Amino acid sequence: MQLDPVLAQIDADLGKSVDRLLEFLSIPSISTDPAFKQACDAAADWLVSDIESLGAIAEKRPTPGHPMVVGHITPSNSDDLPHILFYGHYDVQPIDPIELWNRDPFDPQLDETTKGKVIRGRGSADDKGQLMTFVEACRAWRAVHGKLPCKLTFFFEGEEECGSPSLVPFMNENKDELTSDVILICDTTLFQSKTPTIVTRLRGMLKEEITIIGPDKDLHSGLYGGLAINPIRVLTKILGSLHDERGRITIPNFYDGVMSLTNDVDTQWRALKFDHTTFLSDVGLVIPAGEKEFSPLEMIWSRPTCEINGIKGGYIGEGFKTVLPSQASAKVSFRLVGNQDPLVIRENFHEYVRNMLPYDCQVHFEDYEASSGSVMSTDTPAFEAARNALSCEWPDEAAFIGCGGSIPIAGHFQDIVGVTPILIGFGKDDDQIHSPNEKYDLESFHKGTRSWARVLNSLTQ
Amino acid sequence: MQLDPVLAQIDADLGKSVDRLLEFLSIPSISTDPAFKQACDAAADWLVSDIESLGAIAEKRPTPGHPMVVGHITPSNSDDLPHILFYGHYDVQPIDPIELWNRDPFDPQLDETTKGKVIRGRGSADDKGQLMTFVEACRAWRAVHGKLPCKLTFFFEGEEECGSPSLVPFMNENKDELTSDVILICDTTLFQSKTPTIVTRLRGMLKEEITIIGPDKDLHSGLYGGLAINPIRVLTKILGSLHDERGRITIPNFYDGVMSLTNDVDTQWRALKFDHTTFLSDVGLVIPAGEKEFSPLEMIWSRPTCEINGIKGGYIGEGFKTVLPSQASAKVSFRLVGNQDPLVIRENFHEYVRNMLPYDCQVHFEDYEASSGSVMSTDTPAFEAARNALSCEWPDEAAFIGCGGSIPIAGHFQDIVGVTPILIGFGKDDDQIHSPNEKYDLESFHKGTRSWARVLNSLTQ
Repeated sequence: MQLDPVLAQIDADLGKSVDRLLEFLSIPSISTDPAFKQACDAAADWLVSDIESLGAIAEKRPTPGHPMVVGHITPSNSDDLPHILFYGHYDVQPIDPIELWNRDPFDPQLDETTKGKVIRGRGSADDKGQLMTFVEACRAWRAVHGKLPCKLTFFFEGEEECGSPSLVPFMNENKDELTSDVILICDTTLFQSKTPTIVTRLRGMLKEEITIIGPDKDLHSGLYGGLAINPIRVLTKILGSLHDERGRITIPNFYDGVMSLTNDVDTQWRALKFDHTTFLSDVGLVIPAGEKEFSPLEMIWSRPTCEINGIKGGYIGEGFKTVLPSQASAKVSFRLVGNQDPLVIRENFHEYVRNMLPYDCQVHFEDYEASSGSVMSTDTPAFEAARNALSCEWPDEAAFIGCGGSIPIAGHFQDIVGVTPILIGFGKDDDQIHSPNEKYDLESFHKGTRSWARVLNSLTQ
Repeated sequence: MQLDPVLAQIDADLGKSVDRLLEFLSIPSISTDPAFKQACDAAADWLVSDIESLGAIAEKRPTPGHPMVVGHITPSNSDDLPHILFYGHYDVQPIDPIELWNRDPFDPQLDETTKGKVIRGRGSADDKGQLMTFVEACRAWRAVHGKLPCKLTFFFEGEEECGSPSLVPFMNENKDELTSDVILICDTTLFQSKTPTIVTRLRGMLKEEITIIGPDKDLHSGLYGGLAINPIRVLTKILGSLHDERGRITIPNFYDGVMSLTNDVDTQWRALKFDHTTFLSDVGLVIPAGEKEFSPLEMIWSRPTCEINGIKGGYIGEGFKTVLPSQASAKVSFRLVGNQDPLVIRENFHEYVRNMLPYDCQVHFEDYEASSGSVMSTDTPAFEAARNALSCEWPDEAAFIGCGGSIPIAGHFQDIVGVTPILIGFGKDDDQIHSPNEKYDLESFHKGTRSWARVLNSLTQ
């Protein structure tokens, strides 16, 4: 089937494509906060209805958490056609600090900026906008040719931003239905906001909430100050010791399983000429703050981290209160690489904390997500076909790169379905995902949609 | 004038006295939170009206913050009568964590407990209930004798719980009006919940809010984790280093001006046989957590402290968010003793923090209250008369003690008016002031009121 009329149709339909995305973005599907459960459900319904309009047999499928959406398109005479599965997620991050948004995060719009038009709103880049690039490519293809060039399965999740608790059980139960020849995922970025990429290396994730408990009630520091243990003091002592002066993490055996780069990968990464100065200056920083002996790309792609993502204790309102609080807590996450074992690290972290606890303090751990890092093997025709298709759409040649984030679904497809997924995405470094004023460039959306048409064409030749 | 009928009147009027206090407690006069400005004003109005009913010429006096209440009672033929001033504060602490209260903190009531009746509600012990013990003693005296045995000035503040920003300017401007022969303050406790006391030593207070600022926006730890500086990590490193392994504070020159106890005071304090085991076990603790070489009473009465009263950064809602926040902040307070200079310590603290700041981080300091510790000289007839009066009301002999809290007004009376105040109070260790479920024992309120009648009698013989 011909590609050029599909690309022309994408160009012609862009305005309507944006309108559909804005409607999708207006649903506040924050998965981590139970208050938004109904909105997550509404976002799933919206997707079912939208892919049904493409001819899919689609369903919202219940889980103990937010529902999955699964849809299948089977063109007539499809026996010889390849089967492609596409994955994206419809849930979004919380919106706080809300006071830093320039507009209602769920009243999205197309904004003019000095760098061009952007689609502004929570989820525009992560991941509703990216998800819709693929859906819109399918819509255009069907509008021009009456049918798709492949069998297609849509698989949309609603718990990606809260640790995907239902994902693995669902994939195990529906393994046959999710098996296909090629798996495509759209949740990544252009390299340096311009080079198209296929991500072949992801960091894993371990998340822990720790609560230090001291006195059984809040105390007045005038009565007890100097005599009673203060849980915030204990918590800061523990967290403040997690990194040494060189930026290395001090938990025993933490680096077991971390490997050096191969010469081949090292060469590829050097060729990318990563401009870390611009990458940092975009967010008001100058100096790489990671382990001193590693390059900036290694810091974000191949080295593990330990970060405190949230901390809370005592009086945090306006003014002052001289309280010694009963407890203090922090959310700590680790990005993992290579063969680091998240469950072993969790145990070692627990023991590290317990060893630093003074008398009269207890600790409570709330265990969240634990996933390993992954490295994809790229020596299959599909990877090369996808890379060529991307190179045709964008000025730069497409590159195989690493990614500092954790997309556990990639490993699950490898482990459960036995297919190595191809991760393609069109986000830019300044999209402010997970932050106030998240946006997705209209260029990302438009050329992203065109890219998927090219990839579909290339994979089905 | 006769004392016994006054005591009998106090006993007979107890029910109505409690009702008046409950009405006063229902006004949510939280001074630190601007949302309660009107309630502070209403509490001041309530006091004006109440002391007018005792024959006072009273006024709400404006300040840049919450108003002062000043009232004067001048009995006929009062030229030879001593002039007594009484100070208390009508503002209260915030109520969070609200979920730990057993009832609405501003819907107070008389509760039955296994230890007897208590008046439950925010401010019941600190300081509205204590303030009203004196007012009710005056009311009974007037009911019996038709007039008071002294000239009397009431001086009530509404900013004690938020650092008293308007107090010193107001006292300086109204110095003559606030000058008297004896100054009484009711904002302290019984020793070990049973021995009546006059506090002769108070710790000073230095309060600082520090904010560490890193990237100019919140970042996604998948994109920037390992490369960008994390302000929570910086903050915990700094705060976690403020105490050494022996519990000593590590800020340079912090202990300049801290003095050892005199043998005399040391002997008095040993005679009190402080039961720190019970004091700690009341709040679920076992071991004194202060400087190892000092006694528990020294830890709270004569040693300086550094406490983190609140800390906040990143995502603190339900669930998880892998954010690297743009900033993190903490409220830090120091209790000061002897000749420690709060302004020098503030400078040294700022420098200590700045010296630990990594590249790419800024710090913002919000300076709050700074006051020195104070030690009263007790060799005047008034101190001895007050001590004797208290010993008559309670089973134990009254004692001169220290106090771990900061009541800066005491020092201001010494510095501005030139009179050493007498600090008497009837709170108990389990009153949970500044905490959820604050209460004031009915016994404290009743015998406290009787105590003031005895003190008035003793001072005017």
